[in-house]
Amino acid sequence: MKKNVNPAKGMRDFLPKEKETRNFVENKISETYKNSGFELIETPSVENLENLMGSEGGDNIKLIYKIMKRGDKFNKAKGKENAIENDFADMGLRYDLTVPLSRFYCNNKANLPAVFKAMQIGYVFRAERAQKGRYRSFKQCDIDIIGESSNAAEIELITTTSKALKALDVDKFKIRINDRRILRAVILNAGFEESQFENVCVIVDKLDKVGFEGVENELNKSEYSEDAIKSLIQALGKINEDGIECLAAYGVDEEVVIWIKDIMTKVDKALKNTVCVEFDFTLVRGMGYYTGTIFEIQYEGLGYAIGGGGRYDKMVGNFIGQDIPAVGFSIGFERLVNQMIEENYEIPGLGKIALLYDRENDFADVMMYADEIREQGYRVALFEKAKKMGKQLSKLQDFGFNRFVVFGEGHIKEI
Amino acid sequence: MKKNVNPAKGMRDFLPKEKETRNFVENKISETYKNSGFELIETPSVENLENLMGSEGGDNIKLIYKIMKRGDKFNKAKGKENAIENDFADMGLRYDLTVPLSRFYCNNKANLPAVFKAMQIGYVFRAERAQKGRYRSFKQCDIDIIGESSNAAEIELITTTSKALKALDVDKFKIRINDRRILRAVILNAGFEESQFENVCVIVDKLDKVGFEGVENELNKSEYSEDAIKSLIQALGKINEDGIECLAAYGVDEEVVIWIKDIMTKVDKALKNTVCVEFDFTLVRGMGYYTGTIFEIQYEGLGYAIGGGGRYDKMVGNFIGQDIPAVGFSIGFERLVNQMIEENYEIPGLGKIALLYDRENDFADVMMYADEIREQGYRVALFEKAKKMGKQLSKLQDFGFNRFVVFGEGHIKEI
Repeated sequence: MKKNVNPAKGMRDFLPKEKETRNFVENKISETYKNSGFELIETPSVENLENLMGSEGGDNIKLIYKIMKRGDKFNKAKGKENAIENDFADMGLRYDLTVPLSRFYCNNKANLPAVFKAMQIGYVFRAERAQKGRYRSFKQCDIDIIGESSNAAEIELITTTSKALKALDVDKFKIRINDRRILRAVILNAGFEESQFENVCVIVDKLDKVGFEGVENELNKSEYSEDAIKSLIQALGKINEDGIECLAAYGVDEEVVIWIKDIMTKVDKALKNTVCVEFDFTLVRGMGYYTGTIFEIQYEGLGYAIGGGGRYDKMVGNFIGQDIPAVGFSIGFERLVNQMIEENYEIPGLGKIALLYDRENDFADVMMYADEIREQGYRVALFEKAKKMGKQLSKLQDFGFNRFVVFGEGHIKEI
Repeated sequence: MKKNVNPAKGMRDFLPKEKETRNFVENKISETYKNSGFELIETPSVENLENLMGSEGGDNIKLIYKIMKRGDKFNKAKGKENAIENDFADMGLRYDLTVPLSRFYCNNKANLPAVFKAMQIGYVFRAERAQKGRYRSFKQCDIDIIGESSNAAEIELITTTSKALKALDVDKFKIRINDRRILRAVILNAGFEESQFENVCVIVDKLDKVGFEGVENELNKSEYSEDAIKSLIQALGKINEDGIECLAAYGVDEEVVIWIKDIMTKVDKALKNTVCVEFDFTLVRGMGYYTGTIFEIQYEGLGYAIGGGGRYDKMVGNFIGQDIPAVGFSIGFERLVNQMIEENYEIPGLGKIALLYDRENDFADVMMYADEIREQGYRVALFEKAKKMGKQLSKLQDFGFNRFVVFGEGHIKEI
């Protein structure tokens, strides 16, 4: 009986060539992070469901893959009157790396430095509607600094992430930066209510797509005070023109302005002005858990960010009932790799040699000869010589082999 | 509210030091495999449930973690009369890497070489009863050769796996080898029925633990023919004494004897007699899907294997209704790493430097100074200098730092 040989919907197989590129990119990033003093940790893909459900993941909570209870526990759930989905499940696949990091930190606090600089690379899972370019399992590369309340954390994260991209020769990007405290001050100062803050943010977020008029129209659709709308649009125009310098006039604490300017100045200096770091009042970022600085990597010509992060001082400590300052920066690995492949990024040559042998050769001799070539730094794969060697070589070339040697002939040839 | 900060039962967090060791071991293994011509592929942790349930995983099928259907599909299952577990689930976590490899191969056959040498490293999941040293999520490192019917596949897999272990300075191991065809011939030749084969295997498997008498007693508990039992025990004794040379007398095809002897000779030669490869008639291996050669890595003093594999010619093709020859060898990563940690294996020094700075220092200057030291090949992590520097250094030392430098002082000191 023939079966379905495709991966589950939204999941992917990676063939050797793509896997090689992915590994190269991942290794470059993790090497930069490691050299910069971030420590690689690992958390399991599977977490207790209550930890996932009780997290501040917003809409992502709805996309959690739940793992069914087993045996008696499953039967008990089935027998329960009005049982709901969560009665049937006890664990789930993580939807991001931040919830597991927070749990990890609280679990291992005693064995970690006071300021902990963590790196995590792994898959996360979301039951998204499957469509081209949107995956249900995708990789994230995160660095986080936990326990640092000064903006040294932001400065180091932005600098280090920029270095990782530059190590990959990726340079058509800029960093947009903003602060939730600025957004809040300006929006409340214009006359909106605290309860309206998140929704107004969502609309302001669209400024670069729909323009001032578009934002005004959309605000007018909701029942906000006309004065507040007018006042906010005016502020937006002024901030757009004069930038960070005029924020004090719109109710923003001077301290916050200094905080952001200091981050920008020091990142510029540390990176020797090789990366553009830009204040952008319209940067909002979706996650509700951010409490301060927020930032994003904008790649030239792309309508979406290839990475982002911010300060979330209220989340890590949630597990143990105290506030613990934390800032994170996440690279969207899939978007980055896809963009690099799109631009025909070539990873350095691999020196792959196909060693062709006959069935009549002593296979132990063939293997020992392969070892000799390997000592010269090549990867050597053994293949039985086909009758039609030309066809075989051309197929091997498609598969990434650029050289071959016939056992017994003893010289390596280009394919 | 305080929450449970432990990983889900049977799952693990890895702190930096252990993660570093695990990565080192994994990289050494994958480097050896890669240089030997095996191509790294990746399959998702999540597979369609029907593919997992329909596979030949024996008891592992019962240990599959099932992922719940979502939304309407879940409600439909709940509404169904006499709904069973599988009505509620559509996907599952893989319990090994061989089922996904088989699906992968059938899915991508057109784009793979005629003989495909694959490497896969990844987690598999089994809902085992949680207990010390038994995990519900564990890593496997597999190499498989698909499409090769000659014993060149076995020779290459055994040689390459041995090389990977030796690259890690692991050498207290030997390879035990046997063949399902030998087991079958000897057992049937003694007078057992085909239908009794698997059960008799399970008992023979225990010979090294319970001895000849123990095996005989256990065989006598089932309703097997007395003659068959007597005859098998006699054969076991003789094979135990005379080894592979006497197999022909017990109904084993000469061809199969030559096959095994040839593997042993060539592996010995290719590895220059540095690894002991031993024929062992009592090696059975649990998985029912093996069709020919089977082998195992036995580590000195351990009661369990740290790796194993064999030929499974009927499984890969299952997905597309044809026979495709295949042989695989899997290293049990957790058992290997645990044994190495047990023996105090030290991974090469890391050159980790803690750069201590004051809040008064310009943080951009500190970062630029760190980059200078990094160019000398060190990993450098930045920490604000604590009031009690001695205590801080001792904590950093626990965390793997062996050197430090105070910003402004400019010379690196040992901790």
